[in-house]
Amino acid sequence: MTQNLPKSAGNDESHIRPGEVVVPLPEQADAGIYFIGRIRTPWTSRKECPKNARESRERGTVCTVEVDPRWSAALPGVETCSHLILLYWMDRARRDLAVQAPKHYSDGGRPTFALRSPVRPNPIALAVVELRKVEGNVLHVVGVDCLDNTPLIDIKPYFASADSIPGARVGWHTDRKR
Amino acid sequence: MTQNLPKSAGNDESHIRPGEVVVPLPEQADAGIYFIGRIRTPWTSRKECPKNARESRERGTVCTVEVDPRWSAALPGVETCSHLILLYWMDRARRDLAVQAPKHYSDGGRPTFALRSPVRPNPIALAVVELRKVEGNVLHVVGVDCLDNTPLIDIKPYFASADSIPGARVGWHTDRKR
Repeated sequence: MTQNLPKSAGNDESHIRPGEVVVPLPEQADAGIYFIGRIRTPWTSRKECPKNARESRERGTVCTVEVDPRWSAALPGVETCSHLILLYWMDRARRDLAVQAPKHYSDGGRPTFALRSPVRPNPIALAVVELRKVEGNVLHVVGVDCLDNTPLIDIKPYFASADSIPGARVGWHTDRKR
Repeated sequence: MTQNLPKSAGNDESHIRPGEVVVPLPEQADAGIYFIGRIRTPWTSRKECPKNARESRERGTVCTVEVDPRWSAALPGVETCSHLILLYWMDRARRDLAVQAPKHYSDGGRPTFALRSPVRPNPIALAVVELRKVEGNVLHVVGVDCLDNTPLIDIKPYFASADSIPGARVGWHTDRKR
């Protein structure tokens, strides 16, 4: 498989901030993703977006998930879930930073796998969303943090028994706030 | 981008069970995934694997995640997390079932997006794992449910504030058990 990388995903180093580390990307992709729908939000620029899924839930904005009719038959039963996990493709994020310096962390570069930033080798974002309503192929949800028209790649039921760890700790983040 | 689908991901209908619904897949992929490592487990056949991440955590088997050295610089800070979200590519699962009939549900077909089965348009599995130890590029974790050598596609810190919903409910599943 060959992949035509968009400019934002390549090795354009013009926007590298101090402390960031660029890694050469593999020459080709290992597997292919199908977009299965689009997420519609009121946000058309990054600065309008909630910083993360928690902030989005706190704001309470209801967004919609438009599932491609091809996959209609895969939806029944989803409406019985109080919460879902959505995976979506952050198609404007660069993929080649191993260490990045998000604007809201003023204390230097942060390694990619310790962050939830969309900047990562596979720019898959994950949000646990509250499901408000299902109308045909459209899900009404609270908790996404993405730009309007972001490609959807998966919908999963959220099982508290497997997915909820109330006592989990992210040390670097907790310690930073003290 | 063109995609060479493995046989297991195509339209081979020889293994369709009663109640299952096959959807024609798009002719080509919309985006490309890079494998960033491998998950090493003691399981080499599906029947040995835990049924899901919760069962895996209950068994307590420590598995290892070998991260490609290309991404070493992206790891520091991960060791401060008690739990991680791993995304991995279930490369042996078919991708064209909108309704499927897993063996352990005897009561008919189930729509794909109401399930956590690896059979889905994008066979990305998600597990919340407990991180036991980091040694160089190798993470020791409890909670994956996959075959040995499954390709890794992402590592994310688990934030209880965003990811933990103890009261979440999957209605069809709860009602089934009553």
